[in-house]
Amino acid sequence: MASRGGDVVKNKQVKLKGYVKGSPKESDLYVTSESTIELRVPDGSPEGAILVKNLYLSCDSSMRIRTGESQRAEFPTFPLDAPISGFGVAKVLDSKNPEFKVGDLIWGFRIQWEEYSLITKPEGFFKIQHTDVPLSYYARILGMPGVTGHFGFNEICSPKEGEYVFISAASGAVGHIVGQFAKLKGCYVVGSAGSKEKVELLKTKFGFDEAFNYKEEHDLVAALKRFFPKGIDIYFENVGGKMLDEVLLNMRSRGRIAVCGMISQHNLDHPEPVYNLRSVISNRVRIEGFVCFDYFSRYSEFLDAVLPYIKEKKINSLEDVAEGLDSGPAALVGLFSGRNIGKQVVAVAHE
Amino acid sequence: MASRGGDVVKNKQVKLKGYVKGSPKESDLYVTSESTIELRVPDGSPEGAILVKNLYLSCDSSMRIRTGESQRAEFPTFPLDAPISGFGVAKVLDSKNPEFKVGDLIWGFRIQWEEYSLITKPEGFFKIQHTDVPLSYYARILGMPGVTGHFGFNEICSPKEGEYVFISAASGAVGHIVGQFAKLKGCYVVGSAGSKEKVELLKTKFGFDEAFNYKEEHDLVAALKRFFPKGIDIYFENVGGKMLDEVLLNMRSRGRIAVCGMISQHNLDHPEPVYNLRSVISNRVRIEGFVCFDYFSRYSEFLDAVLPYIKEKKINSLEDVAEGLDSGPAALVGLFSGRNIGKQVVAVAHE
Repeated sequence: MASRGGDVVKNKQVKLKGYVKGSPKESDLYVTSESTIELRVPDGSPEGAILVKNLYLSCDSSMRIRTGESQRAEFPTFPLDAPISGFGVAKVLDSKNPEFKVGDLIWGFRIQWEEYSLITKPEGFFKIQHTDVPLSYYARILGMPGVTGHFGFNEICSPKEGEYVFISAASGAVGHIVGQFAKLKGCYVVGSAGSKEKVELLKTKFGFDEAFNYKEEHDLVAALKRFFPKGIDIYFENVGGKMLDEVLLNMRSRGRIAVCGMISQHNLDHPEPVYNLRSVISNRVRIEGFVCFDYFSRYSEFLDAVLPYIKEKKINSLEDVAEGLDSGPAALVGLFSGRNIGKQVVAVAHE
Repeated sequence: MASRGGDVVKNKQVKLKGYVKGSPKESDLYVTSESTIELRVPDGSPEGAILVKNLYLSCDSSMRIRTGESQRAEFPTFPLDAPISGFGVAKVLDSKNPEFKVGDLIWGFRIQWEEYSLITKPEGFFKIQHTDVPLSYYARILGMPGVTGHFGFNEICSPKEGEYVFISAASGAVGHIVGQFAKLKGCYVVGSAGSKEKVELLKTKFGFDEAFNYKEEHDLVAALKRFFPKGIDIYFENVGGKMLDEVLLNMRSRGRIAVCGMISQHNLDHPEPVYNLRSVISNRVRIEGFVCFDYFSRYSEFLDAVLPYIKEKKINSLEDVAEGLDSGPAALVGLFSGRNIGKQVVAVAHE
C-alpha cells in the first residue's frame, strides 16, 4: 500500500479559559494557533473517520449551558483542553467513510470551533444534497434554526389560519423563521425584540403584522393587551422569565406555548420566578418543551416542506456573519447582549 | 285547566355573608330558613322549568374562586342574595320539561345549596340512568371527580404501562380516583397527602404503590428522588406552588403534567413563584391545563369506560359525608385545611 501523506498545517482553535458564571464575556474564550494538524485521516484511525475543513459555525444560546459547570445530559460541559463545538457546516478533505466522499459538504452537530477537524466517528452529520442554495443556509434556515422553527411551530403549536401568534426574541435565529411560517399559515403575528432596528426589520423584511421593543415597554401586560386585545393563541417562547409570566395572563382558551428556549435565564444562577401558571387551568393552556435533536431523523421531510418556500422566495432568513475564527468569541458572547440580528454565524472559511 | 297547588314549605339555604379574602372561614357562610318555596313549578314559569329536591351537594375547591370578588368567566362570583351552588344530585318533584319526569334523578352543575330549587332553565344536568349504584356516586366517581380523573388522566396524560405516576392531594376527590386508573393501566403510582391516616388509606384501600405525608418531608426534592429514583413520567397536579416547582426538577424525558387544580394557591392573594420551568425544555415536558366542563359532552363514553370497573369492584371511591345543610359551611371550608378524606359531600336528604 502506498504511503499517504498530507500537509501539516497550523490549526487555529477557540477554547474556553475556564467555566463561566453569570454573563459570558469575550475574555472567557481565547483563540490559539498552538495546535497543528495533518490534512488527512491518519493511518490507524478508526474505520469511518473523516477529516474536514470547517466553513460555517453556528452561534447558539444553548452553548452557554455547555460553558458552565452544571452537567445536563443533553448539553454536556465543554472540555477545557479542546475547542468548543456546536452546529456548523464543513467540507470533507479526506475520508475513510463510505458515506462521505472527499469534496462532500456536510452539516450537523459537534463541529469543532477550529479550522480543521479529524472526526473519528461522524455521527449526527447530514450530507448537503441541495447545493443550489447558499452554503451558509445550512447554519440557519436549512440547519438547526430551520428544523427547530418548523417542527416547533408547525407541529407542536398546531397553528390554524387566523390565529394570534406571539414570538419573543423574534429577530433571533429561530424567531424570524417562525414568524414567516406563521404568516404562511395565515396567522396574525406579533414579535418582540430588543431594538428599534430589529423591530423595523420584523415588520419590513419578514412580514410580521406588528412588532415591539420590549425594552421600551415598561408594562408588558399593557403591551400584550394592545397587540392582542383578544388574547394569544400561540406563544413561541424563546426568552422565559417575566415575559412568559405576562404572556400566561394573556393566553386564549386552548392556547399553546412551545418552549424553544429561555435565553433570559441562561446567565442566571437562580432563574426568575413565574407566578401565573394557575391560568393554564381555566384557559386550558398547553405548555410544551422540545429539543431540536428529536426531529433530525425527519430532516428530509423538513426539506420537502421548506425548500420550495426558499426557492420561491416566500421565506427569508437573515444571517449576521462574523468573519474568521478570531471574531468567534465576540460573536458568541454577543448573543446575550442582543448584538446579533438574525442568525449569528462565524465564517471560518468560504469553502 | 285545573288549578295546580303544591305545599309551601320552609327552604333552608346556605349563603355567603360577604366576599372572602384569604383562607375561607366557616363564619363566611351562614344557614338561613327565612325563605319558603311552593313545591311545584309555578304557573307562568318558563317552559322547561323543573322543581327539584336537592339530595347531595359536592364540595369543590374551585368553589373558593366563586366566593371571592375576582371575576373569572368560568367561575363567576356567587351572588350574595342567593344560595351558593355547585355540582350535586337532585330529584325532580315537578316538571314542565319533556326531558325530565317527576321522580327522575338528575346530577349536574348549578345545584343550589338549599333544600328545594326551582330551576327555570335546566342546562348542564344529566338524567341518572344507572340506579343500581349508590346515588351519592354521582357526586364523586360517577360525577365531576370521576369525569375529571378519567379524561384528565387517561386522555391528557396518555399513560403507558410501567410508567411512573405521581399524584398530589392524592386522597382528595379526584386524586384517589386517578391513582386507581393509573394502577389499572399498570403504572407505578405514588401519592402525596397531608396526614398519616390519608397515606395509609392510599396504600391499603386504593392500591397506591407508595404514599407520603408532604407535611413531614422537609425536603420535597429528596422525597421525590426517594420514591422516583428514575424520575416521574406523569404528574397529576392538584396543588400547585412549591410542589409543582420540585416536581419539575424530577420529570423524565417526555413527561406529562396534567394541571387539574392548584388548591394550595386558591387562598393566596399572590400566587407562589415557580422557578424551574426551564427544565421543560431539556426534558421535553408537556404541561396541560384542563377543565372538566369540556368533557361532559362525552359523559356516556365515560360511563361505558368506568361503570364496569365499579360493578366489578375494581375501583373504589371514598366519600366523606356531612349530614344536613347545617353542616355545609364547615364541610366546604374544611377542604382547605385538608379535613376531608375522599370526596366531601353534603347530604341534604337521602332521597
